[in-house]
Amino acid sequence: MKVTSFTPPVRTLMGPGPSDVPARVLAAMARPTIGHLDPAFVSMMDEIKHLLQYAFQTKNALTIPVSAPGSAGMEACFANLVEPGDKVIVCVNGVFGVRMQENVERGGGVAVTVEDAWGEPVDPDKLEVALRTNRDAKIVAFVHAETSTGVQSDAKTLVEIAHRHGCLTIVDAVTSLGGSPLAVDEWSLDAVYAGSQKCLSCAPGLAPVSFNERAVERIKARKTKVQSWFLDLNLVMGYWGGGKRAYHHTAPINALYGLHEALVMLREEGLENAWARHRRMHLALRAGIEAMGLKFLVREGARLPQLNAVLVPEGVDEAQLRQRLLEEYHLEIGAGLGALAGKIIRIGLMGHSASMKNVMYCLGALESVLGEMRAPVQTGVAMNAAQNAAVLN
Amino acid sequence: MKVTSFTPPVRTLMGPGPSDVPARVLAAMARPTIGHLDPAFVSMMDEIKHLLQYAFQTKNALTIPVSAPGSAGMEACFANLVEPGDKVIVCVNGVFGVRMQENVERGGGVAVTVEDAWGEPVDPDKLEVALRTNRDAKIVAFVHAETSTGVQSDAKTLVEIAHRHGCLTIVDAVTSLGGSPLAVDEWSLDAVYAGSQKCLSCAPGLAPVSFNERAVERIKARKTKVQSWFLDLNLVMGYWGGGKRAYHHTAPINALYGLHEALVMLREEGLENAWARHRRMHLALRAGIEAMGLKFLVREGARLPQLNAVLVPEGVDEAQLRQRLLEEYHLEIGAGLGALAGKIIRIGLMGHSASMKNVMYCLGALESVLGEMRAPVQTGVAMNAAQNAAVLN
Repeated sequence: MKVTSFTPPVRTLMGPGPSDVPARVLAAMARPTIGHLDPAFVSMMDEIKHLLQYAFQTKNALTIPVSAPGSAGMEACFANLVEPGDKVIVCVNGVFGVRMQENVERGGGVAVTVEDAWGEPVDPDKLEVALRTNRDAKIVAFVHAETSTGVQSDAKTLVEIAHRHGCLTIVDAVTSLGGSPLAVDEWSLDAVYAGSQKCLSCAPGLAPVSFNERAVERIKARKTKVQSWFLDLNLVMGYWGGGKRAYHHTAPINALYGLHEALVMLREEGLENAWARHRRMHLALRAGIEAMGLKFLVREGARLPQLNAVLVPEGVDEAQLRQRLLEEYHLEIGAGLGALAGKIIRIGLMGHSASMKNVMYCLGALESVLGEMRAPVQTGVAMNAAQNAAVLN
Repeated sequence: MKVTSFTPPVRTLMGPGPSDVPARVLAAMARPTIGHLDPAFVSMMDEIKHLLQYAFQTKNALTIPVSAPGSAGMEACFANLVEPGDKVIVCVNGVFGVRMQENVERGGGVAVTVEDAWGEPVDPDKLEVALRTNRDAKIVAFVHAETSTGVQSDAKTLVEIAHRHGCLTIVDAVTSLGGSPLAVDEWSLDAVYAGSQKCLSCAPGLAPVSFNERAVERIKARKTKVQSWFLDLNLVMGYWGGGKRAYHHTAPINALYGLHEALVMLREEGLENAWARHRRMHLALRAGIEAMGLKFLVREGARLPQLNAVLVPEGVDEAQLRQRLLEEYHLEIGAGLGALAGKIIRIGLMGHSASMKNVMYCLGALESVLGEMRAPVQTGVAMNAAQNAAVLN
């Protein structure tokens, strides 16, 4: 095998993440590598913590990026907060709820699931019932923004219920961070994790997490050691915390340059403005999608602006549709997962990808390919509808 | 706090890693992000596997980069191969042996340590004795190249002993990969892990690992699930393996572009040439160090070319020495760890940092700062000695 330097194709990324990474973030990752204990790097770590606090809307001191992808951020929460034998109520309404359950069980915890249909938000009443019948539960875990279905759950209400029953909460905000309202302190989320490659528009590979005082106390009071040395926050805090930094692992320096730049850009735009932009682009996309006669999986009111699950029209081979979009338009959209495979496509409007240019490009490409596939859709109408919606909203 | 874009200082990295990252690798990381299931990315993954097989000198199919730093590579080996109750012989002669022991115990295994002094290689006779008195041991773990002391152990011999007693082996090659001879297949190493930021001269954040057939069989035959979902190789193989790729986690796309480029560069130079270059630069540095009257921690014959532990001369404040090198020369060298803190400095000659320019720069800066600190060293002689050694070797 003869291998030469790799030049990736230039795609438009409108799947479930990664999203388009802006040139400023790409350039930041190419800056000269320095040491993970260099004073200049340590200052930058402080800035990242500060910027992440802004993005999460929290004052939590333990607000850091885990040096690995979002899945490891999830694992950091469960591995640190769940001890063997602990009962955890896991709300499952998509792929990532299932993964949470796996995390609980692999760590020796007992998972009790509260099930909702994929495409529905988590039902607070079901959680209430589960907590009444499981009075020994210690933690409630749920996904704020289910990337697999495009559904948003009411984090504030779910956390209130959990707290009323004396439980800590672990919240998956992988897809919500930076894309739709998330208020860690105001909603009293105890532990929350996210990913760099969704609405922050950074390259994949980092998992911002935030833990409040109660969660930190729980970690410090563990009777057993965290099973993962790499993710043990007692140790990670020694590196990311204040004062003298102890070597734990070698941080992914250049990836963190990228995250820093992405967060500076978020700050420049303003968090509320970023949320409003995601919302506006969603309304434009929705107008175009509906003008074509296509339908959403999720009912209005529970839809995530940044992840649009659209039902595949009758007779259309979903895999072929995505393949043609990728090959003919260099446009990536997402497939359905699990039971939704083949039934939905997932159109991401995350971070830098949430732009009018992308909305228009995607609608035009969809119309064109679906038209050629003789799908039962209206063509030649979507872009105009989107334009009108953008003007109105 | 007002935060703006981060511009790192340009350092010369001659510590224990990260090493200097060449411009080609930095540029690769700034290429446009694409999706982790994009056919173009999947082809690149195959190339990375192929290039890593070359770097490790193995045909092992399971040869991949773990999506996290070297510490997670270590954890991937232990979490997958050790089941609760398994007895593991851990050879400890530095920081990373201690960390291996932690990994065994956190995973529910029973660690039996074979101790050697920090600065000494692992003693094969002690391992033999330990295996005779622990006939139920299932795994032997040791560090091939101890980054904390600069000592090299005889991997081939240690693995032979382990195999004679029916044990699998886990080998830490974080600092050896690409810098000094490592022959995974010829030496029959069963599981081996490394890091991207040492002799491969890539940015930190990825951990190349390789498992042979016997190790893979052991993983597949586990009675218990791997405690870490993120590091479960049964799942990771579904993404990195051949055939249809199943989504597991979102790979760190841009970091992998960098690793790909670093491996292409290694292939262009040739592995043996890279080893010889590290050796030649070590001999040049050694000549300069010894001309100054300084001494190595490790006896000749057990020294790693890529990590030089030098005893701090009498009366010199080691922290101040490093600080001055960093501030006045933008030169990073490493501190001693654990019991060696304050007693040694660690000079890395890893990957791109193993160049005559760096050797000369480091020697000149050391002479200058040590001279000003009135250390008992000979000055004005090191660079000439290094030059002569380089010509001779």
